[in-house]
Amino acid sequence: MSYIQDLKWNKGMKVKDMVSSFSNLGYQSVELKKASDVIVKMKKDNAKIFLTFTSNMVTSGLRGFFAQLIQLGMADVIVTTVGGIEEDIMKASGARFKIGNFSSDDVELHEKGVNRIGNILVNNESYMHFEDRIMPMLDKLYAKQKRWDVSSLLREIGLMLDDKDSILFQAASCGVPIFCPAITDGAFGFHLYLFQQKHTDFIVDVVKDFGNILFVTSYDEKKGVIALGGSISKHHAILSTLLNGGANYAVYMTTAHKTSGSMSGATTEEAKSWGKVKDESDVATVIGDVTITFTLAMINALEQLSEEGLLKPREKVKVEGRSLEDIKKYVRG
Amino acid sequence: MSYIQDLKWNKGMKVKDMVSSFSNLGYQSVELKKASDVIVKMKKDNAKIFLTFTSNMVTSGLRGFFAQLIQLGMADVIVTTVGGIEEDIMKASGARFKIGNFSSDDVELHEKGVNRIGNILVNNESYMHFEDRIMPMLDKLYAKQKRWDVSSLLREIGLMLDDKDSILFQAASCGVPIFCPAITDGAFGFHLYLFQQKHTDFIVDVVKDFGNILFVTSYDEKKGVIALGGSISKHHAILSTLLNGGANYAVYMTTAHKTSGSMSGATTEEAKSWGKVKDESDVATVIGDVTITFTLAMINALEQLSEEGLLKPREKVKVEGRSLEDIKKYVRG
Amino acid sequence: MSYIQDLKWNKGMKVKDMVSSFSNLGYQSVELKKASDVIVKMKKDNAKIFLTFTSNMVTSGLRGFFAQLIQLGMADVIVTTVGGIEEDIMKASGARFKIGNFSSDDVELHEKGVNRIGNILVNNESYMHFEDRIMPMLDKLYAKQKRWDVSSLLREIGLMLDDKDSILFQAASCGVPIFCPAITDGAFGFHLYLFQQKHTDFIVDVVKDFGNILFVTSYDEKKGVIALGGSISKHHAILSTLLNGGANYAVYMTTAHKTSGSMSGATTEEAKSWGKVKDESDVATVIGDVTITFTLAMINALEQLSEEGLLKPREKVKVEGRSLEDIKKYVRG
Amino acid sequence: MSYIQDLKWNKGMKVKDMVSSFSNLGYQSVELKKASDVIVKMKKDNAKIFLTFTSNMVTSGLRGFFAQLIQLGMADVIVTTVGGIEEDIMKASGARFKIGNFSSDDVELHEKGVNRIGNILVNNESYMHFEDRIMPMLDKLYAKQKRWDVSSLLREIGLMLDDKDSILFQAASCGVPIFCPAITDGAFGFHLYLFQQKHTDFIVDVVKDFGNILFVTSYDEKKGVIALGGSISKHHAILSTLLNGGANYAVYMTTAHKTSGSMSGATTEEAKSWGKVKDESDVATVIGDVTITFTLAMINALEQLSEEGLLKPREKVKVEGRSLEDIKKYVRG
Repeated sequence: MSYIQDLKWNKGMKVKDMVSSFSNLGYQSVELKKASDVIVKMKKDNAKIFLTFTSNMVTSGLRGFFAQLIQLGMADVIVTTVGGIEEDIMKASGARFKIGNFSSDDVELHEKGVNRIGNILVNNESYMHFEDRIMPMLDKLYAKQKRWDVSSLLREIGLMLDDKDSILFQAASCGVPIFCPAITDGAFGFHLYLFQQKHTDFIVDVVKDFGNILFVTSYDEKKGVIALGGSISKHHAILSTLLNGGANYAVYMTTAHKTSGSMSGATTEEAKSWGKVKDESDVATVIGDVTITFTLAMINALEQLSEEGLLKPREKVKVEGRSLEDIKKYVRG
Repeated sequence: MSYIQDLKWNKGMKVKDMVSSFSNLGYQSVELKKASDVIVKMKKDNAKIFLTFTSNMVTSGLRGFFAQLIQLGMADVIVTTVGGIEEDIMKASGARFKIGNFSSDDVELHEKGVNRIGNILVNNESYMHFEDRIMPMLDKLYAKQKRWDVSSLLREIGLMLDDKDSILFQAASCGVPIFCPAITDGAFGFHLYLFQQKHTDFIVDVVKDFGNILFVTSYDEKKGVIALGGSISKHHAILSTLLNGGANYAVYMTTAHKTSGSMSGATTEEAKSWGKVKDESDVATVIGDVTITFTLAMINALEQLSEEGLLKPREKVKVEGRSLEDIKKYVRG
Repeated sequence: MSYIQDLKWNKGMKVKDMVSSFSNLGYQSVELKKASDVIVKMKKDNAKIFLTFTSNMVTSGLRGFFAQLIQLGMADVIVTTVGGIEEDIMKASGARFKIGNFSSDDVELHEKGVNRIGNILVNNESYMHFEDRIMPMLDKLYAKQKRWDVSSLLREIGLMLDDKDSILFQAASCGVPIFCPAITDGAFGFHLYLFQQKHTDFIVDVVKDFGNILFVTSYDEKKGVIALGGSISKHHAILSTLLNGGANYAVYMTTAHKTSGSMSGATTEEAKSWGKVKDESDVATVIGDVTITFTLAMINALEQLSEEGLLKPREKVKVEGRSLEDIKKYVRG
Repeated sequence: MSYIQDLKWNKGMKVKDMVSSFSNLGYQSVELKKASDVIVKMKKDNAKIFLTFTSNMVTSGLRGFFAQLIQLGMADVIVTTVGGIEEDIMKASGARFKIGNFSSDDVELHEKGVNRIGNILVNNESYMHFEDRIMPMLDKLYAKQKRWDVSSLLREIGLMLDDKDSILFQAASCGVPIFCPAITDGAFGFHLYLFQQKHTDFIVDVVKDFGNILFVTSYDEKKGVIALGGSISKHHAILSTLLNGGANYAVYMTTAHKTSGSMSGATTEEAKSWGKVKDESDVATVIGDVTITFTLAMINALEQLSEEGLLKPREKVKVEGRSLEDIKKYVRG
């Protein structure tokens, strides 16, 4: 058991110095340090790392960080909600979001064609970027086959993006599957619907994708979960680990509390009752805004892994026997 | 503008007396009263009412209340997450949940086969109830057709349940569609997957269901949203109202705050920037545990509507030209 | 261990029917029911009941309810912050607060002389009401003696108010002491300071009042705490019970969570480690807005105690051998 | 208006690089950056800086950081609750706190004489350290004079501590007053009471101290407030700025939300309606655990001020014409 030790500032202080000193502070800072340690452990133990986030994380400016983490081998499976996928595609197509205010005149924003997500502003044009981009992609995908499981569909889209800050591109390039159990819950759903109206034999097979996430890991493989926020992205990842004997490592970061019985607020302890994480697993639950807590915890973990020479950027993968270049040639026609 | 007036207890106090007095209290009590008023208004204005809830509400003991609300005509469209559907089926099959403790020995619970959701305990047998029930249902559904959109599939399941406290049964009986955009994110997903392994032409068509929720209402129809908790259930409903010109009435009840930019915490004001609710709409956001705030607000609305003779239990509908009895005969073989 | 049972609405539903049904709901509703039960138990066990609240509860419209509770014998010791005392005096002098909006143009409000507390508006005139009233009171008190402990000072003020909805009046009339450990933290402090400038031998003796709250109860007496919100009002009450062997019953109601280590969020469990409540005590912690949760829990308790004939309005007390009328004659000159 | 820009990790990342990148992230990270900027501005503008914190911040390991900030000239007035003062004295006397767990067996802890504050453990011996230290101090103070205002009393105690990590010592040495409007709400109150039992003419004059905080600044002086957590420490500081024309700069950091009307959750916007901060002031409200958010924001401010050569450690002051060494000689006898 460790003692509380006073934090002190030193000029030129590094993130890792700061997070190290969190070992000896109380409340959420020491929990954040534990979370960082659990991330380091799951990497060192070669666990398969499930990284889950809700779409507002992608909105917030963590998109490029997630892409970097995939490329650095810090995420082996991604689970997210469809808004994050839409925004990843928008941004790969040049859309830019602005910083606004939590208290705004929302009627005025609406008249200007500006949509608000907390203190972030997304204009209607961004959705047009998405629309312009997605329709030709669906044409190409349909030309290839009629029935798509979601993760395969997202991989093919990723290969068409060619933006190193894109989550979908990096994931596809590195062979990291992206799962999105509610693919129709957004603008993407609308465009899929319009497409299906023209092509009634076009099928998005969510049931098949359940098998994909089920077999993305195994009972014997070590498994780690990093769940940012709640929703189905968190639930779907831990459902997969549950069906594979439970995660060995779990970090939950959220602003929600356990007192309302929500998935967002469900703790790593509660997860043990379900077998979502193993009884003897290393776990940490951190309460706070993920844009702050996750960046701190993960950057500290990256610094530590990097110093120990354990951080190796991934090779671009060959997908289904094809090289990445082959695939790009194909998907771009 | 109204004045603060002191609340006083009177012996035999009714819920409606209490909620009435909330008109003159500050903080969340007056917001709760506003929410109740907005519910009354949406009903009086014949708005199509979208009721959305996350699965933990069904876990909590609000299942029968939701079923009652459907039967009383207080919900015209349901959107939920798959856990709520699984539990509705479990409970229709005799499963019973226990009240436990937020702080538990979760390893011990796990050893006993007990799963915890906040302070509620669900034993593994409940999931067996679900499994035993769902498999023959899928056989029957498959015998009828190979490709199912989600809401049609849920309607047929509802008709097979015959439990007046069941959400699926009451919804099916009353012609109220249930949407579940992430149908595979739970035990149901696992069973759908197993079924598809045996029947590869079995398709759950989520894209088609997007059309169903899109056309469940129209631009001209008055629309109201009552969103309990966040997640895709909330988002999917307001996506439908957004694509139909925005809701005229909206009540959001949640424990989440707007400060993290999450869907759970997104306010009715933010929704105006998107056109999810109309600029001039009647809206209320209430922060608090839904098992308390929603029951108070809704019961007050029911009392008021009942007194004014505006609460009329629905007729059982004929589905697709068949009477309910015909359908039951069919689905039960 | 009890089972989850679905809540159902019945026409004309009473508050006690609703709270009773909370016994079988999950999350905070069952905790609220437990809180109500603990309140009933502390009353039946003749425990000395410490009721603590922060000033915003008085602002909100619970002032008259607190006064009623004192009169009904549901509170034997009051601990609060000075804002609540100021507002009690303002309202006894005719001040009225308005209901506003959480999102306001605060610069505009400021220009209009309106001060905002969440969604409640207090105009500057209310503070003038306070000022007009307090200055002659201090003159009278000073004429009587120079050195005042806080609770005696508040009792004398209470006797001068003569408003049955006043907390100070009911407390003084019923012999219930009011403690306020930070008596100078508000407009009252300013007026005490101005008074002391003219009368340098005028002393408010906070140290002596520590003895008063210390000896307001004893090691052998049964003790119950109902703490609404956090702050020094909560802390001061449990400090008194701690020094007297710990409370036998404790109900904490707050919107704060335990995760930040704050007094507001400190739980009844944590209190056991300190001996603030006894190890084997009956405790409940309810998360939610007190204007909703406390009114529900307490009204249910009142209904139950009333039915069992255990609710007996207090006699007006004789204070220090004087009858109430004598005192009033005195303090009004 | 700035754009969202993706955060990226670079090896050896410094705290200031990280907080700089928060300028372009959404939700609380950009608010944290604003808070840091407001701190820099108040310093550059030579504003009198009121730093307020609740006692749990001192418990958490921020004590030495607060002491450092005083020494660096980043706090000109301190307002806190008495627990923080007690712990400052305990720690100056060798007490050490341990890191524990939010979920503990509190009955077992109680039996071991261990008190829990969130995930921090304080043993009973620590309180004995306090007791051993405070009693001779009170003797000395009483020998000097009978009637003490709180801030003078705390200054004299500070001078007796001689621990560079002590808040009271650094404040006394640097001429920074510490205000504590509820000085009796803790173990200190108990010891003051015991002392007064022996010396009935011993007076702690809280009314006089109201004058001290009132005249610690003026209408014309620029004023800044950094309020960590809520409670009377936050309220008392802004009461002083209110009575002096309002603060020009304000940073509120808390885990509480505005929706319950509590002081903890009251925003810098609401403060404008009161004139607690000026209409045109620079303000920021950050939601999150202060051990994380404040350290990040303040360290970033220190780095920036340091680079610009604006961070000058204070000279030790002469108090009332005496040098610090004179005073120490005196108070230590």
